[in-house]
Amino acid sequence: MDAAQSKPGHAEDGNGSARPVGKRTREPEVRRFAILEAARAAFAERGFAKTTIREVARRAGVTHGLVIRHFGSKEQLFVAAVPGSRNLMAEVAGDLGSLPKRVAQSYVRRMSESGSGDPFVALIRAAASEEEAAKRLFAAMQDEALEMYRQVIPGPDVDRRVSSSGAYLIGVTFARYVLRSGPLATMSEQELVRHLTPNLRAILLD
Amino acid sequence: MDAAQSKPGHAEDGNGSARPVGKRTREPEVRRFAILEAARAAFAERGFAKTTIREVARRAGVTHGLVIRHFGSKEQLFVAAVPGSRNLMAEVAGDLGSLPKRVAQSYVRRMSESGSGDPFVALIRAAASEEEAAKRLFAAMQDEALEMYRQVIPGPDVDRRVSSSGAYLIGVTFARYVLRSGPLATMSEQELVRHLTPNLRAILLD
Repeated sequence: MDAAQSKPGHAEDGNGSARPVGKRTREPEVRRFAILEAARAAFAERGFAKTTIREVARRAGVTHGLVIRHFGSKEQLFVAAVPGSRNLMAEVAGDLGSLPKRVAQSYVRRMSESGSGDPFVALIRAAASEEEAAKRLFAAMQDEALEMYRQVIPGPDVDRRVSSSGAYLIGVTFARYVLRSGPLATMSEQELVRHLTPNLRAILLD
Repeated sequence: MDAAQSKPGHAEDGNGSARPVGKRTREPEVRRFAILEAARAAFAERGFAKTTIREVARRAGVTHGLVIRHFGSKEQLFVAAVPGSRNLMAEVAGDLGSLPKRVAQSYVRRMSESGSGDPFVALIRAAASEEEAAKRLFAAMQDEALEMYRQVIPGPDVDRRVSSSGAYLIGVTFARYVLRSGPLATMSEQELVRHLTPNLRAILLD
């Protein structure tokens, strides 16, 4: 990120090029940044299911193999590229008592910033038309969340708690941001944080 | 329902007929039953968005106007026809302390009986392709639930609580019954009831 910000010209150079750029022309961090930028644009334009790694590689001016080497799979690339996911560890780490409020705040902030580009919205939209793609994306999102939460929530049932809090936020996303209907849709952001916090506390910790 | 069961021949007679049956040939309860049966079959075959009131009327051998007179709208017909909804008042009425457990039990039982015919699944599948239809269906389901719950849950924020518990169950449906992935999908039915009960208590009552 720092490398990309100090040399913005390099990241831009590759975007218009149809041919992969040679290994030595850009540092790894700059190419990683270019791949993430290309992925965000492609996912936003075409949706999760229709976007291919090949298309992201072409947009970023790198090889297909380099995208795989950096991110592993389309699902992992999506999780890395979409807004919010990058800050999950920052959101989760810290005092257990304030975790539910931080999760609620971070969820509401992320939704207001990303709108229909949010991974939850992408997941809900993909589920109806592309069930297998949605299933893989869901598994990648759950795996990433579990890895973080296991470091802060004690007890043997942390996986169930995290999965259940994710389900709750997916349902809230469905009502407020996809269908935009009913009491959850008309609350202000502050009211929503206040409403979600005790419920997330019950699901995650009690 | 009783009338239909005592005279099954009457309900069947109309199903194959393309022409509406005259007003005096069947009693109102029998025709109501025939409409619900036709609606269940049509919604199961074609999904919520693609089913029309006209088609349901044709299958039931009644007029379009009669369906509207009995049920009001396609959304209300759906809510009346799908499994589970008919028992919502029986599920909600009773002791407030045991309400969360009864809601969890009734949800799990309904899902195991109805599978992909459940209104939550229909709603999730409709949301991606037919957003306006899904929005109307969601509003009808919320209205029906609110009417029941307002009779048992005290306090000014009952609408938010009911809407939020509905969102939670939609999210659980999404993970367990639509994507069938992760910890929520692998729990037994008894484990799921035990897992959901305290969380529904927090959302509905605490």
